Amino acid sequence: MLTFYYAARTCALASHIALEESGAAYATARIDFATEQQRRPAYLAINPKGRVPALATERGILTETPAILAYIAQSFPAAKLAPIDDPFAFAEAQSFNAYICATVHVAHAHGKRGYRWADDEASFADMKRAVPRSLGACFGLIENGMLKGPWVLGDAYSICDAYLFTVAQWMEADGLDPALYPRVIDHRRRVSERPATMRAIAAEAASGN
Amino acid sequence: MLTFYYAARTCALASHIALEESGAAYATARIDFATEQQRRPAYLAINPKGRVPALATERGILTETPAILAYIAQSFPAAKLAPIDDPFAFAEAQSFNAYICATVHVAHAHGKRGYRWADDEASFADMKRAVPRSLGACFGLIENGMLKGPWVLGDAYSICDAYLFTVAQWMEADGLDPALYPRVIDHRRRVSERPATMRAIAAEAASGN
Repeated sequence: MLTFYYAARTCALASHIALEESGAAYATARIDFATEQQRRPAYLAINPKGRVPALATERGILTETPAILAYIAQSFPAAKLAPIDDPFAFAEAQSFNAYICATVHVAHAHGKRGYRWADDEASFADMKRAVPRSLGACFGLIENGMLKGPWVLGDAYSICDAYLFTVAQWMEADGLDPALYPRVIDHRRRVSERPATMRAIAAEAASGN
Repeated sequence: MLTFYYAARTCALASHIALEESGAAYATARIDFATEQQRRPAYLAINPKGRVPALATERGILTETPAILAYIAQSFPAAKLAPIDDPFAFAEAQSFNAYICATVHVAHAHGKRGYRWADDEASFADMKRAVPRSLGACFGLIENGMLKGPWVLGDAYSICDAYLFTVAQWMEADGLDPALYPRVIDHRRRVSERPATMRAIAAEAASGN
């Protein structure tokens, strides 16, 4: 039995959606960021990095969204969540997910978590002002090439779509103009309408805000 | 035939080492960061992100180190560069690589590339001062748990070792005290002595500085 550790309104939603798409049996454990539960010893024993998501399996605990997404796709192949039998196509999926994780998510994080990389309030404000530029450049690349259409990898829905949907939800609050990214916005709407997406969002909402 | 695009003294070294370990036949194409060759149209046609590494294959071009490393491991299974037939063990390798890519490398990048996430010179200086703290925390986690020993994943050398070696080389220049990370330093020495590592470094040195 899998146990999925998440916090509401975080990148963990991507893995939550993938679990719903996969048909896996799993329990959830909600970590409350408002009370900094992720920094308490009980959770640091699960993930010493103090971040979400984490996925507890019978073999041990996995962290990092790209790793968890690929693990779900490989563990539940019937759901066809990634081209796992084709090393090149799988690498394209992994490349997309690495970009979301290391560039898109990192650009977004500078809006509220500048303390990770600097110490002065003035730097945090400067970083926050730069988010529309840095994150906008990311979504520009996605809009104009990385999102093949109709799904990220082309004709087949994959773990990449759950991940793009998750970070594309941050666009407006981060000061981007959605009108500049019509393909990303259309993709976001189509992912939002999938039953698995709706179930994951409903489960997170049901446990409070 | 593969063509590997790299720049000297960058994270591309990890993939370069993995290619040498794999036994793959490949050509190299050096991108000169000093003259900003990575921003010219010829290279942007290879990788619109303007970054290295990139790996051109018969099927298309791959970018992002974690994706390239996993692709090499899956494409040349005889080299046994990752536990590719065990989804959980493979996910552990991927989790390590995602952490290097999205957290360790990102912490390091704030030392010289603060302009990606801010605009003011004062912010760049603040970010640079914070690197020993942020990067030090990363290497603390690696030293005290993530590096299982003797290799990252335990008994078997893998793509993770090439990646850790590559970023551990940055430690001194980033203001960290190597004495605080004896297991990482011992690992760095052992990877440096592998013939594949020596060949990759020699090839990059032979093409100039």
